[in-house]
Amino acid sequence: EYPHVLLAHGGGGRLMHQLIDAIASTFASAELARRHDGAALRIGDMRLAFTTDAFVVQPLFFPGGDIGKLAVCGTVNDLAMCGARPLYLSVSFILEEGLSMETLGRVVASMQAAAHEAGVEIVTGDTKVVDRGKGDGIFISTAGIGVIEHDRPIGPEAVRPGDAVLLSGDIGRHGIAIMAVREGLAFETEITSDCAPLAAPVLKLLEAGVAVHCLRDLTRGGLAAALVEIAQTAGLHIQLDEAAIPVRPEVQSACELLGIDPLYVANEGRFVAFVPEAEAERALSILQTEPVSADARVIGHVTADGPAGLVTLRTAIGTTRVLDLLSGEQLPRIC
Amino acid sequence: EYPHVLLAHGGGGRLMHQLIDAIASTFASAELARRHDGAALRIGDMRLAFTTDAFVVQPLFFPGGDIGKLAVCGTVNDLAMCGARPLYLSVSFILEEGLSMETLGRVVASMQAAAHEAGVEIVTGDTKVVDRGKGDGIFISTAGIGVIEHDRPIGPEAVRPGDAVLLSGDIGRHGIAIMAVREGLAFETEITSDCAPLAAPVLKLLEAGVAVHCLRDLTRGGLAAALVEIAQTAGLHIQLDEAAIPVRPEVQSACELLGIDPLYVANEGRFVAFVPEAEAERALSILQTEPVSADARVIGHVTADGPAGLVTLRTAIGTTRVLDLLSGEQLPRIC
Ligand SMILES: Nc1ncnc2c1ncn2[C@@H]1O[C@H](COP(=O)(O)OP(=O)(O)OP(=O)(O)O)[C@@H](O)[C@H]1O
Ligand SMILES: Nc1ncnc2c1ncn2[C@@H]1O[C@H](COP(=O)(O)OP(=O)(O)OP(=O)(O)O)[C@@H](O)[C@H]1O
Ligand SMILES: [Mg+2]
Ligand SMILES: [Mg+2]
Ligand SMILES: [Mg+2]
Ligand SMILES: [Mg+2]
Ligand SMILES: [Mg+2]
Ligand SMILES: [Mg+2]
Repeated sequence: EYPHVLLAHGGGGRLMHQLIDAIASTFASAELARRHDGAALRIGDMRLAFTTDAFVVQPLFFPGGDIGKLAVCGTVNDLAMCGARPLYLSVSFILEEGLSMETLGRVVASMQAAAHEAGVEIVTGDTKVVDRGKGDGIFISTAGIGVIEHDRPIGPEAVRPGDAVLLSGDIGRHGIAIMAVREGLAFETEITSDCAPLAAPVLKLLEAGVAVHCLRDLTRGGLAAALVEIAQTAGLHIQLDEAAIPVRPEVQSACELLGIDPLYVANEGRFVAFVPEAEAERALSILQTEPVSADARVIGHVTADGPAGLVTLRTAIGTTRVLDLLSGEQLPRIC
Repeated sequence: EYPHVLLAHGGGGRLMHQLIDAIASTFASAELARRHDGAALRIGDMRLAFTTDAFVVQPLFFPGGDIGKLAVCGTVNDLAMCGARPLYLSVSFILEEGLSMETLGRVVASMQAAAHEAGVEIVTGDTKVVDRGKGDGIFISTAGIGVIEHDRPIGPEAVRPGDAVLLSGDIGRHGIAIMAVREGLAFETEITSDCAPLAAPVLKLLEAGVAVHCLRDLTRGGLAAALVEIAQTAGLHIQLDEAAIPVRPEVQSACELLGIDPLYVANEGRFVAFVPEAEAERALSILQTEPVSADARVIGHVTADGPAGLVTLRTAIGTTRVLDLLSGEQLPRIC
């Protein structure tokens, strides 16, 4: 259908899903078919999670973070979304000839600080250099290993009718922080990325024995794409309450200015958790004890009687809107 | 010393080592300090190997392989060099806008074929797209997990005086195959890359109980760089016999034409093994049962009395030459 790769193929929308489907069908792995944030592997009598992400964000530094912090948190968070305790990271750099060593040094220091904060160790790496004009300063791929210390299956396939959908905090800050730098926008209140490690609140939920069914961090494609993917894979209906979804006023204004919908804006320190309705209150109070998820709340429910595979939003003015994947993306190279 | 990254910082020589030393000292991990092909981790009561490499080779397709096959074999081989059985791979793509889908499809199919041949499963991945002119078709980072099924420490620190140095086959084909395509050179005999998975011969050695002390695949920097790194880390002297090192005549001619030394040319399917002298013959006969190492031979020894940290070569004409790291590289973007 598309003879060439478009920017939209990396944008977290429908085109990206089609491309990944084509790639993953060639790789033909049962773990890949789950389309979760990482793979859950059994090696010997251990359960391990394994995941990877590449980071190509521009600019390299932005309010609230930089490509190095993003590369560590991104992989830590995908491990956490597998219900794993993140342990070890690999880091591979693709440097463009001419990159300033000072910039590289700042990125490396930021990665080490983020790894320390998240309690993971960077144990192996690689460094390649490409000719000037064949890269863009620095690209980073991280992969990570975590240990799964429980027998719970966590993923879209474990979502059940009646589950409550919990959101860990306000949305849209990462994408808007990047966009503001790129477009040279200045707001009264500086908008900083939400980029942060998410393992602590997730592990607290699991250690407390909450029957977590599914977890997902809200990266490319934002809250909307994450929930649409889960609804489709689970074959269930998710009903959301717009009024319950926190968006800071400055993010709301920026979105209006830029003509984009905060529901589709990337985050790097936010996640959703699906838990049985009966455990929602307890789960919330656990999440609220961690600073990164202090503002957690219930934003919707999974229903058996609604249209299967769809996400619907009850808007503030009482109408209902179907959330779909965008075809491409709003903001390229956001992570 | 160098305010900006040079191509030579990725070239497998002295500049690359200095850059990696600076990066790794910030990451401050005991595993990284070993500077082996991958990390050996203990998780629960399991020993696992974990490694990563990025691949930026140009051209994407070359006689004997392509970037996809390279990306799978490279990570499989670094796991094997840790003495591990390779199990699972992650793959992260950085695609340049405009890349042809047909090219991408061929690379993905090649990765799957290589993974199948090497007996590993690609279980997780990521796909990013960068703007036209900010990448170069396709970059791939793979990471891998393997299981270490023995208690042997394998690495430069385990090398002992008296060890024999075994080489698995002829050297220089990968680098020269790439260079020939780039320079439009045609030889009477087409030179094909040696790119191949190396786990089978390594596992056979280990399963037979050979006391393998160190393993290393001969990638960037070639045989010379691999041995210099090991001699330096082990603080021992390695003496090589040039006449014992197989170089095919067409590779030798191409090297003369290009003015480069085959000892420094990259391979992607060759490795050295350090084993006690008394086990060398048995080890050789095991290696020779596998097609990829059918031409294995002893090329030198570790001595306690020679100059510590140096590699010396007894040349065919009876002189002695010290092998050192090149500062940069002979052939950029070879892998
Ligand atoms: N960016 C990095 N961060 C941390 N460690 C690194 C980095 N780059 C390389 N290393 C470490 O330095 C050592 C040498 O790396 P190198 O990439 O040369 O090994 P290799 O993968 O065996 O060779 P090649 O990349 O040519 O296949 C390894 O221990 C590796 O983990
Ligand atoms: N090139 C690829 N090869 C194999 N599987 C892939 C590839 N790209 C993505 N996937 C798989 O597709 C699914 C979705 O990947 P995606 O990158 O969107 O997830 P994520 O990492 O959670 O999100 P983000 O990358 O925005 O942080 C995952 O299961 C992932 O393993
Ligand atoms: Mg994720
Ligand atoms: Mg991710
Ligand atoms: Mg490497
Ligand atoms: Mg290696
Ligand atoms: Mg390697
Ligand atoms: Mg991803």
